Amino acid sequence: MNVELISVGTELLLGNIVNTNANYLSRKCADLGFTLYYQITVGDNETRLTKVLEDALKRSDIIILTGGLGPTEDDMTKEAVARVLDRKLVMDEETREKIKAYFAFKNNNLPKDRQDSEITINNWKQAMKIEGSIVVENDNGTAPGYIVEAEYDAGSANGSRKQTKRIILLPGPPGEMIPMFENRILPYLKNLQDRIFLSKMVKICGIGESKAETLILDLINSQNNPTIAPYAKSGEVHFRVTAAAKNREEANQLLKPILRELENRFGSNIYTFEEKETLEEVVVKLLHQKKLTLATAESCTGGLFTGRIVNVSGVSDLLKEGFITYSNEAKLKYLGVKKETLDQFGAVSEQTAREMAVGAAKIAGADTAVGITGIAGPDGGTATKPVGLVYISCYCNGKVTVRECRFRGDRQKVREQSVIHALDLLRRCILEETEIDH
Amino acid sequence: MNVELISVGTELLLGNIVNTNANYLSRKCADLGFTLYYQITVGDNETRLTKVLEDALKRSDIIILTGGLGPTEDDMTKEAVARVLDRKLVMDEETREKIKAYFAFKNNNLPKDRQDSEITINNWKQAMKIEGSIVVENDNGTAPGYIVEAEYDAGSANGSRKQTKRIILLPGPPGEMIPMFENRILPYLKNLQDRIFLSKMVKICGIGESKAETLILDLINSQNNPTIAPYAKSGEVHFRVTAAAKNREEANQLLKPILRELENRFGSNIYTFEEKETLEEVVVKLLHQKKLTLATAESCTGGLFTGRIVNVSGVSDLLKEGFITYSNEAKLKYLGVKKETLDQFGAVSEQTAREMAVGAAKIAGADTAVGITGIAGPDGGTATKPVGLVYISCYCNGKVTVRECRFRGDRQKVREQSVIHALDLLRRCILEETEIDH
Repeated sequence: MNVELISVGTELLLGNIVNTNANYLSRKCADLGFTLYYQITVGDNETRLTKVLEDALKRSDIIILTGGLGPTEDDMTKEAVARVLDRKLVMDEETREKIKAYFAFKNNNLPKDRQDSEITINNWKQAMKIEGSIVVENDNGTAPGYIVEAEYDAGSANGSRKQTKRIILLPGPPGEMIPMFENRILPYLKNLQDRIFLSKMVKICGIGESKAETLILDLINSQNNPTIAPYAKSGEVHFRVTAAAKNREEANQLLKPILRELENRFGSNIYTFEEKETLEEVVVKLLHQKKLTLATAESCTGGLFTGRIVNVSGVSDLLKEGFITYSNEAKLKYLGVKKETLDQFGAVSEQTAREMAVGAAKIAGADTAVGITGIAGPDGGTATKPVGLVYISCYCNGKVTVRECRFRGDRQKVREQSVIHALDLLRRCILEETEIDH
Repeated sequence: MNVELISVGTELLLGNIVNTNANYLSRKCADLGFTLYYQITVGDNETRLTKVLEDALKRSDIIILTGGLGPTEDDMTKEAVARVLDRKLVMDEETREKIKAYFAFKNNNLPKDRQDSEITINNWKQAMKIEGSIVVENDNGTAPGYIVEAEYDAGSANGSRKQTKRIILLPGPPGEMIPMFENRILPYLKNLQDRIFLSKMVKICGIGESKAETLILDLINSQNNPTIAPYAKSGEVHFRVTAAAKNREEANQLLKPILRELENRFGSNIYTFEEKETLEEVVVKLLHQKKLTLATAESCTGGLFTGRIVNVSGVSDLLKEGFITYSNEAKLKYLGVKKETLDQFGAVSEQTAREMAVGAAKIAGADTAVGITGIAGPDGGTATKPVGLVYISCYCNGKVTVRECRFRGDRQKVREQSVIHALDLLRRCILEETEIDH
């Protein structure tokens, strides 16, 4: 079965917002094993929307529309679908009651006589459904979604050919669309497939994208089930491994040997197999497991590394202190970096990076510490110390490791890559320390 | 004239990447005063691409295609356009020489006998151009772009109707597409318009989106030239004011009274009128102008605030020191927050925020300091101190201001809003200090 996406909204055509919905839904359809040939974006205009819908019905089995379900006159997705399918819009009493309850709650603080008048007539438009459609509840807004199943005559040179078409209408705001899709549409779509699709995400860092791909090119090319698809991500490499099977167990059996082979090839470069786990979460989990505390000393990243660590909830017991020592003065004063070191080797040097990590650990009384010093640009580069040169140090239980990195790209890019490499270095140092324990 | 965008690439249909190109080009077309009715995304498939192109030629004057210009067999955009326009592909000698030079440079480190063989046959595909097209140089890659002007017979019920159509082919990677568009396509498109469009971006913070819109709803609704369009941005509100005129001077004359009126209504909530200027740049500029140094003390934001400041190049002379004091212990030890304050009012309190800013300024010897302490969630909230409660303090030349904020959203959102509000508070405190000086 093939799916077509139609995003409705003039704000998309004006470039006011990026169409992340199309990306999200495409990914989900691929995961479900549906083929997607077209993504269409069209404005809040009934003529054009109707035309686009007719084209889609001719060539696709399932059509997912996002946007245009709200209360304003501009919102006309439901009307266009009803027209194309030659159906009426009818009042859905259940939705009507829900809208009433929503506004009663929202206007609770208003005087009684104003509570009802605050519900403008427009809002009742959201209680109208396409005749014969399934109303899909919206937990995060007032506009429900809809599933419409219809026998549609797509016509052809050979005359009539009725086919079952499925049209899914979803609200535009991602905060409403995504939970509705996850909770209510996904089960519906899964039911249409006789196979299930199971994915694992192999997340890799410390190795470049093209090198990573080269290492497993034979697997990527020879595999049909599971498939292996690279996902580019700034500073990291992700591979999605997807198996299609009759059931979960069979899918897991298919995945197992491939995941084992990837582990053989990438070793400790893999930091997780879980799609939702981030690099900082893995690092914080390791610190928790090994009961290690952390201190940080950042120069060119100016707090971004620690900011990433604090992304993870519940780090207050392990994050002792972060120092943002952008100036030489601060490096001397707070971290105890020696003046001779700065004079002899400069602020961006292996030696300074080393003293930053050691100093941060010592002063904060932490088991581990990360130091970052580099030239993020655009100014400050020289022939021997070019823009992009960054030293990353990690102190872990008495041992210090320093990595010299040469990053390409602008200021933002250099700092971003520094943060990822620092997270990776900390991860590896903790793992190595543990290996020695055994 | 109306424009249609066609994004070519199976990776878009699989959801591997977000279509930021469509967003960028839509915005540019809107700025140029072109109307855009459709954005289409289609895979690397010649049949479907050809069909989509034919539809576009029937309904649009200018068609911009991105993607599918590379050297691989999957890349077939040029071939499809040539077919639809019934033109040949011919060798472009200039491009051929450039590809040769590119690889000579790239393979410089290889033995002489291998330099040429490294240019695979595929690469010469990029030297083929559509007959009669303008080749557009690519400063950031090997695949050039193309402009094709054609008299196209879109056909109709009333028979033939030849029209001038313009097809623009651009590479897919944004790093190649954007510079090519800015430097070479923009001048071409501007030339097609008899009017020029001039925009100013009014950037506002410290006031919510819906409130801001309400304040100028009369202007938005009554204005045709200039137009005022809101641009949603996390934690800030931007309005783009665009005038269409015969020339720059006339456009400026049209913009002036509207910008003055917006300034009347929003006052110091406006932090810039420049599209490219960010909030942190404005803050750093103010610090530079007033010759003030800065220290920071962050708890729940864990370095993100200082990270934003360090986004701006050349802050090493004014950023004295940043303290990331996530734990109570660190707040006592490094910032001199009093134990009684923490015991009596808690770490998330006006009093603690105040002492954090004062402590950071004093210890670092800075003229200004910002303190941030709050509950970012998802855990740690109570009835009296719910998730989203954040205290932001600013010390400026002896005076301390503390703001109590209640943010909605997840951990990420709360921290992001905290950073923006802290930047805004610092900006206002510096401005007020200056007013007193006068």
